[in-house]
Amino acid sequence: MTLQVDPARAALLLLDYQNYNVHPEGYWARAVPGSAERAAPAVARTAEVLAAARRTAITVMHVQNAWREGHPDVNPYTPWQAAAKEADRSTEGTWGIEFVEALSPVEGELVVRKRAVSGFAGTELERLLRVHDLSTLVIAGIVTNFAAEGTARDASDRGYRVIVLADCCESVTEEMHQFSITQILPAMAEVVNAADFIEWASAR
Amino acid sequence: MTLQVDPARAALLLLDYQNYNVHPEGYWARAVPGSAERAAPAVARTAEVLAAARRTAITVMHVQNAWREGHPDVNPYTPWQAAAKEADRSTEGTWGIEFVEALSPVEGELVVRKRAVSGFAGTELERLLRVHDLSTLVIAGIVTNFAAEGTARDASDRGYRVIVLADCCESVTEEMHQFSITQILPAMAEVVNAADFIEWASAR
Amino acid sequence: MTLQVDPARAALLLLDYQNYNVHPEGYWARAVPGSAERAAPAVARTAEVLAAARRTAITVMHVQNAWREGHPDVNPYTPWQAAAKEADRSTEGTWGIEFVEALSPVEGELVVRKRAVSGFAGTELERLLRVHDLSTLVIAGIVTNFAAEGTARDASDRGYRVIVLADCCESVTEEMHQFSITQILPAMAEVVNAADFIEWASAR
Amino acid sequence: MTLQVDPARAALLLLDYQNYNVHPEGYWARAVPGSAERAAPAVARTAEVLAAARRTAITVMHVQNAWREGHPDVNPYTPWQAAAKEADRSTEGTWGIEFVEALSPVEGELVVRKRAVSGFAGTELERLLRVHDLSTLVIAGIVTNFAAEGTARDASDRGYRVIVLADCCESVTEEMHQFSITQILPAMAEVVNAADFIEWASAR
Repeated sequence: MTLQVDPARAALLLLDYQNYNVHPEGYWARAVPGSAERAAPAVARTAEVLAAARRTAITVMHVQNAWREGHPDVNPYTPWQAAAKEADRSTEGTWGIEFVEALSPVEGELVVRKRAVSGFAGTELERLLRVHDLSTLVIAGIVTNFAAEGTARDASDRGYRVIVLADCCESVTEEMHQFSITQILPAMAEVVNAADFIEWASAR
Repeated sequence: MTLQVDPARAALLLLDYQNYNVHPEGYWARAVPGSAERAAPAVARTAEVLAAARRTAITVMHVQNAWREGHPDVNPYTPWQAAAKEADRSTEGTWGIEFVEALSPVEGELVVRKRAVSGFAGTELERLLRVHDLSTLVIAGIVTNFAAEGTARDASDRGYRVIVLADCCESVTEEMHQFSITQILPAMAEVVNAADFIEWASAR
Repeated sequence: MTLQVDPARAALLLLDYQNYNVHPEGYWARAVPGSAERAAPAVARTAEVLAAARRTAITVMHVQNAWREGHPDVNPYTPWQAAAKEADRSTEGTWGIEFVEALSPVEGELVVRKRAVSGFAGTELERLLRVHDLSTLVIAGIVTNFAAEGTARDASDRGYRVIVLADCCESVTEEMHQFSITQILPAMAEVVNAADFIEWASAR
Repeated sequence: MTLQVDPARAALLLLDYQNYNVHPEGYWARAVPGSAERAAPAVARTAEVLAAARRTAITVMHVQNAWREGHPDVNPYTPWQAAAKEADRSTEGTWGIEFVEALSPVEGELVVRKRAVSGFAGTELERLLRVHDLSTLVIAGIVTNFAAEGTARDASDRGYRVIVLADCCESVTEEMHQFSITQILPAMAEVVNAADFIEWASAR
């Protein structure tokens, strides 16, 4: 598939590529052995995409999940957030919430902090997109079914054009990843791969 | 499971139970033969839930999808919305967008119109919930993976307590329905059945 | 002042020019004798602006305030809304909420219904602006300090470029109108007059 | 006036009481000589209100304006924000954006960062209010016509009950302050004074 994107109107949006999610010594690597290895290829591909985006001067935004110390900002009725509080994980100021080194922001890239699944929920993302006049979101994130799909759903519902880089997302199991990629995302997004983005960037 | 809900703080939210979705002569029944029959049990169970809700005086809200004539309000980059425009379906003022008879609003129940998947996207839902001081959403809707799950995701992200009535939702296939019910919704909601809600209502 | 606006990215937004607000037989004309006469010049100028906008093919949106029968959608803690409920005024389906004839929408123009002051509050306005890729709002509305200023504040805060047509707005007193125009709006908007807009439109 | 507030459902919201706004060595004190002295009584009264709130265990939230280094997060079309960028003021990590000492947050109080006028614009405020089940906002902030009134307008429009502590707000001139307090805020809020809040808190 040949991508057609106006770089002046698009953002590459990287979601939740943080130590607690994908680093071999992060929370999930310890809680679910094998998960960091499982995510590693997506991290590597996303690093290539990020390098291509930087060469193209497309806007890059990094979305980071973190809660305040003591978790006063979780939804106590949302099981995954209540569990994070119970585990006392992923709080501001800790190593776990930092972006994994291969996908760290550089100067001039925007970092958006969130407390929930979608990058839009209770964040300044929509305002920043408006201020920078961006209407297309190119999404890479982990895990596929939550941060990536959740943000894609939200963006589509709000009126954005959404492009998902399928192989720059990963999930808990291959079945879960494929469900999102094949059953849900095609209804609301263009679903392509890292190579498509890199090809587009290289042709510019 | 025994539900614990404060009826003064909760809304029963019915999503997209409209003729075009579930009536035997509606759009999807014609486009996908068998789909109305597939949805019929969920409609019947939801009718029982609605009757129980009315006896309990819990707030009932009906969410309805519809576009303006000519579809100037679809997201042209969202495939399912672009397809709706192409098919010229589900526009305001037509029979298709009316609620299916068994789940029609009665006087005093609030109807919210939407143009996208989530009941919150570009609607007055959040303001109405605030004005009526409601913090818990009991969700029944079709299809499971889109209107129901999409609204549950959004509500959880915004800080609400979410209860999904699993057997008051239905999807295109049993696999799709089960994926949402077992793999996604338990992370963000309490997943129960019509019988649990009716038992709770009866005990009041 | 010479306006510079990209017509493909701008909307003319007319707010609350409805019978109950500005018609000689409307609610406010009866409640506050002289108010319809006071608003008439702004209505006339806005009609000229609207005609110019239509010749230019700039997007036109009409924002209309109305509540459901029985006013279940007012904020009961907001005095002006509680008073509207008390007076049982401005409900859906009544003559009062219709746009005044000189500023009636024509086919193809978008109408947005609201329940509060700002055109963004609990409405689909932001989603429609996104779907039509509009980033500049040209505002005319009544009264200056509420619907017009409230929408201008909200739009500026959300990241839009805002242009207010000062003499296409009017308020309860000249002092109130001037306060908004000279003390508040210049901080968040370009404040021009109908003639500036018409000159811009004519030059296209 | 005797306030009736349920402390479990209310937040005291302090807005923009930061060094750059009210400290004698802050940005505005230098730009507009006399402005820190002008604000001092409101700061002192707000400190008494804050002490009373802490004794009552009502939720306290502090809203802080700040931009990223280089101001990539201002609305370039909003004059007051463009001017802040031009002056290179009020960026994250500087002394100017810290809360003035008399109104500094203590452990357990929530701080919300904003980039615009209203405390709701592109922030997590609404989600935090929902998560903590708060429906009433008691507002103190500087300046009256912008952060305080802007947040009061937004909160009323979104469905909250709003209480403004008039003498815990201050503006650029007495005329501007009084306009907001007498002409605008009574339409959307209960307007009381510090003494009313302290009396309410003391009676608990």
